[in-house]
Amino acid sequence: MAIGHTVAAFDAEMRELQATVESMGRIAERQLEMALKVVIDGELQLADQVVAGDAEIDQLEHRVQMMAVRLLALRQPMARDLREVVASLKIAGNMERIGDFARGIARRAAVLADLPTPPPVRSLTWMGQSVVTMVRDVTTAYVKQDPDLAMAVRNRDGEVDAAYTALFRELLTYMMESPQQIGGCTHLLFMAKAIERIGDHATNVAENVCFLVKGALPGEERIKQDLSSFTVLTRKEDPNEG
Amino acid sequence: MAIGHTVAAFDAEMRELQATVESMGRIAERQLEMALKVVIDGELQLADQVVAGDAEIDQLEHRVQMMAVRLLALRQPMARDLREVVASLKIAGNMERIGDFARGIARRAAVLADLPTPPPVRSLTWMGQSVVTMVRDVTTAYVKQDPDLAMAVRNRDGEVDAAYTALFRELLTYMMESPQQIGGCTHLLFMAKAIERIGDHATNVAENVCFLVKGALPGEERIKQDLSSFTVLTRKEDPNEG
Repeated sequence: MAIGHTVAAFDAEMRELQATVESMGRIAERQLEMALKVVIDGELQLADQVVAGDAEIDQLEHRVQMMAVRLLALRQPMARDLREVVASLKIAGNMERIGDFARGIARRAAVLADLPTPPPVRSLTWMGQSVVTMVRDVTTAYVKQDPDLAMAVRNRDGEVDAAYTALFRELLTYMMESPQQIGGCTHLLFMAKAIERIGDHATNVAENVCFLVKGALPGEERIKQDLSSFTVLTRKEDPNEG
Repeated sequence: MAIGHTVAAFDAEMRELQATVESMGRIAERQLEMALKVVIDGELQLADQVVAGDAEIDQLEHRVQMMAVRLLALRQPMARDLREVVASLKIAGNMERIGDFARGIARRAAVLADLPTPPPVRSLTWMGQSVVTMVRDVTTAYVKQDPDLAMAVRNRDGEVDAAYTALFRELLTYMMESPQQIGGCTHLLFMAKAIERIGDHATNVAENVCFLVKGALPGEERIKQDLSSFTVLTRKEDPNEG
């Protein structure tokens, strides 16, 4: 790599790439927070804003891809710089998906609000807040290139998965007791699943922060605690009923 | 770029990268096909195989990332070669997700099979077959670097989204009529959603094939026909009932 203005240009482009990916993370976090306000606090006026705001994240992902190709072609970064470009591409893809899920939650929330008997939306509060914090912290871990913070985010995903499995059972029981709530609860189940998947994407981001700093993805398989796909609830036999 | 054995080594590494991503696509397709056999044809003995097989796709994704970094560092590919490396990274990420969804479908299918009254699993047939074909064709589009085939795959995703929305309504009605089926139908809804998302990932792959060949991602926003997040079904008022 040459000296002088080439190095300065390279540094400026790397900073721009990093700032763009950071923006994606911050916007994704804000989108998710707003989507949760739509569901949990009924702030319906935010729903359209979340749906419209998703296009910005999509555009930023395209920009990251184009910037990465340009950087790789013209600057031929090496070692950690090269890993940063590759990790940024991967992280941008995950942030884009997080934005998609936030949009989906906001859309469904608008539908829920129209139902005569709203389902128990507060059950999403804990999971939602946990995942907002994961997205925030993993974006900071990327900016600060802090693998310890990244691993801490990754380790929290197990709790989110476990909360999702518990909520899945709870909502299924609720639907069986109140079949008029099936529609609403189904949307709530999908929102909970979206939150759980956002946790997975934050985990992927965390793994790429480790790759960026250390040159290797964390090896050991994270223990997956989402057991909802194994969950069966059969309707309780009522001994008084025939 | 030097001549002779350097060029030969570069070509060999590019072919290896491409072959690894192709393998991911072929395995993802096979995993998805097996997962559908578990659900639709009740071939339960395949479920464990699908769950175990997912680790292979995950490992291949790691390998693609390491190969891409190595190629970028040592060979400094340019123009279309560079785009191929970047697109391969992105495509590998999408194939990995497709594998995850196939595993999820297989797991849920094993649960469904234990239910006393199985839900209408055949309703997934059309969507499932469409998406298997999308994954197959988009892998071929990547290998042949054929943007027309890629765009054809992308255009088919609208039908899958529309089928998903129709199925969502159908299953909701079914659950309201037969509350003892709520558990089974919920798993079926999540399987349908997984199939719909696999279609989205195949679409992302298609867009990256276009990027690889043409240097730009397809610009116009694909029309999203998954309207299930707007779907509300309230329980029919029975005029004979009080």
